[in-house]
Amino acid sequence: MRNVAVIGLGMHPWGKFPDKSVTQMCREAVVAALADAGVAWREIEAVAAASSRFSGGRGWGLNGNDVVDDLGATGIPVYNLSAGCAAGGNAFNIGYTLVASGAHDVVLVVGAEKLKDRGGRGLPRFGHPLLARGNSAPGLFALGATRYMHTFGCPKETLAKVAVKNHWNGARNEKAHLRSEITVEQVMKAPMIASPFGLFDCCPTTDGAAAAIVCRADMAKQFKKTAIYVKGAALAVETGRPFFDPTFDYLGFRSTVKAAKAAYDMAGCGPKDISFADVHDCFTWTEISNIEDFGFYEKGQGWKAVEAGETALGGKIPINTSGGLKSFGHPIGASGVRMIYECVTQLRGECGERQVKNARLGMAHNVGGPGAVACVVILGHA
Amino acid sequence: MRNVAVIGLGMHPWGKFPDKSVTQMCREAVVAALADAGVAWREIEAVAAASSRFSGGRGWGLNGNDVVDDLGATGIPVYNLSAGCAAGGNAFNIGYTLVASGAHDVVLVVGAEKLKDRGGRGLPRFGHPLLARGNSAPGLFALGATRYMHTFGCPKETLAKVAVKNHWNGARNEKAHLRSEITVEQVMKAPMIASPFGLFDCCPTTDGAAAAIVCRADMAKQFKKTAIYVKGAALAVETGRPFFDPTFDYLGFRSTVKAAKAAYDMAGCGPKDISFADVHDCFTWTEISNIEDFGFYEKGQGWKAVEAGETALGGKIPINTSGGLKSFGHPIGASGVRMIYECVTQLRGECGERQVKNARLGMAHNVGGPGAVACVVILGHA
Repeated sequence: MRNVAVIGLGMHPWGKFPDKSVTQMCREAVVAALADAGVAWREIEAVAAASSRFSGGRGWGLNGNDVVDDLGATGIPVYNLSAGCAAGGNAFNIGYTLVASGAHDVVLVVGAEKLKDRGGRGLPRFGHPLLARGNSAPGLFALGATRYMHTFGCPKETLAKVAVKNHWNGARNEKAHLRSEITVEQVMKAPMIASPFGLFDCCPTTDGAAAAIVCRADMAKQFKKTAIYVKGAALAVETGRPFFDPTFDYLGFRSTVKAAKAAYDMAGCGPKDISFADVHDCFTWTEISNIEDFGFYEKGQGWKAVEAGETALGGKIPINTSGGLKSFGHPIGASGVRMIYECVTQLRGECGERQVKNARLGMAHNVGGPGAVACVVILGHA
Repeated sequence: MRNVAVIGLGMHPWGKFPDKSVTQMCREAVVAALADAGVAWREIEAVAAASSRFSGGRGWGLNGNDVVDDLGATGIPVYNLSAGCAAGGNAFNIGYTLVASGAHDVVLVVGAEKLKDRGGRGLPRFGHPLLARGNSAPGLFALGATRYMHTFGCPKETLAKVAVKNHWNGARNEKAHLRSEITVEQVMKAPMIASPFGLFDCCPTTDGAAAAIVCRADMAKQFKKTAIYVKGAALAVETGRPFFDPTFDYLGFRSTVKAAKAAYDMAGCGPKDISFADVHDCFTWTEISNIEDFGFYEKGQGWKAVEAGETALGGKIPINTSGGLKSFGHPIGASGVRMIYECVTQLRGECGERQVKNARLGMAHNVGGPGAVACVVILGHA
């Protein structure tokens, strides 16, 4: 397979945009990515697009086709990927594969969603009606958090500290949705959503769009910005009903363990080599579980790292310097592409106040399913 | 890129199956494909799955994940593709690319849909409300048929002959949905749907599932059946509003012209080298338009080939020996994979009464969008 570089990034600010369609938001993200790379629209040879089934695409999941229509149909292949909350990670993997295969040299990856438009209708519930434990994303992940806290003695205040950290980062990120710092007391006193998760333990519903342009590595230097290279890219799918699987221990996700291992193997590195990571913190507990599933910490030790400040900016392994899903927002199909954006801008040294010093390898981690699908991408310099 | 072979095929019979879920239907198709190839489920390294947004996947477009869950989650990557009626073709292209790239050696492609379950709700309408010309699939394609008949003097009886031919073929295909021969008189007297299309000019709504297994060409001979090789695989997307584009001539589809040319270039052949084709006959006129867009006939001459019987079994270039969408049925995301099934079984010489003699190269052609997306795959012997 050929080596692949990320050469362009674009993002529409995330938040609530009632006056824009999902296609308009994509247009702004894609135009920014083209400008960032110094690539013309006509040079894009294929598109991999991500969305859930709940916004845009004229009801058919054709967001990528809408983007192409909007920017000018040039007869290129368009692939529209669905993978629940991991759609963005899936689309990035397909964009990567289209270039790595030799099929195309310059490929656009775009992820977008408008969740605010759904008003009170919300997202559909999960799981089989006969096994309706949890039966919503907060309800299901709350089962994991409860088990984790019970097993390892993690206090609820530690979950709150994940939220406080990610809001601190997001408050310093101009494209983030929730740009306010919060306190542990605010998190602890917030209205309960699904015990132990209060409102501030949960990522918000958000409108957003993000785009990345990838190309074959040997042509990457001809573009405007410092090229950042894909060192590892892996995707693992385990059962789509982890919370209903009698062998599930409620302490972490096999798909994440497997995808991280495959990405390390491909990159020829291990957890100790990763400088920072942007991970799928749909809920505060998920971030703690993830950093253990990656091997950054032993199972049951991740919460102590949070307590010690090791996951904060300037800590041993900064996690979610972007603000994460928690503060940056989580427009379903967009998040996986937004994580690539954060990793690449960090590695380029463009993150200002949020900059990780001496970053060598960054990891993006996107989950869907819920918990069934994990995408891990490791990015670094040449 | 590595060469790729199709080594296994499976299909659930198509029709109306109120007692089976889309995942059950997929299971039967996939298990048949595994048996056909002599491959164990655990040897499948990745899955590319196709569906529209209107059936299965627990509302999230995750049909591929459901299939994996059903057969046993093994931690492999799963990609779920949406592309309207061309989802199956898109999924095959991704399956092909995953092998061609070197990322995986043995990949499953599966497409499925249950349309009968939707009862009276039907499929969503097309197009922008301010441009509501046609505003349904029959309505839109009828505009093309009307223009074609006017421009080239094609009588409505010729459209009827496409339906009669495809029903003749489908009546001889044990997995087809509508297995009855029909007469030109029946087609002409059928209830009007959208002039000039009567009921028998339109493909039915169908439940169905189809699966194909692809592997890298140099390992293909170790499997049970005669390997058939992918000679060309292309995908082209043009505007998603062809019927609302002022430059659209209503006589054919640019995406099909472009995808066919790209597939010929990749295969190193031209239209004269194709022995037979399974094409996207969503309506009778579409088949005539397609065989011109492929270059099998000059624009405006395709209907004369139908009149002369050249597209019938035993004719110069047999079209839709399977029965086509018209008789075999059209469960949206399944059709593109079913076309691969027909081409490969023809090339293997397994089609009995429907067998094309001395078939060298077969072409599969899947459209979505409507008319915006075209996938063309050319298959042949080593």
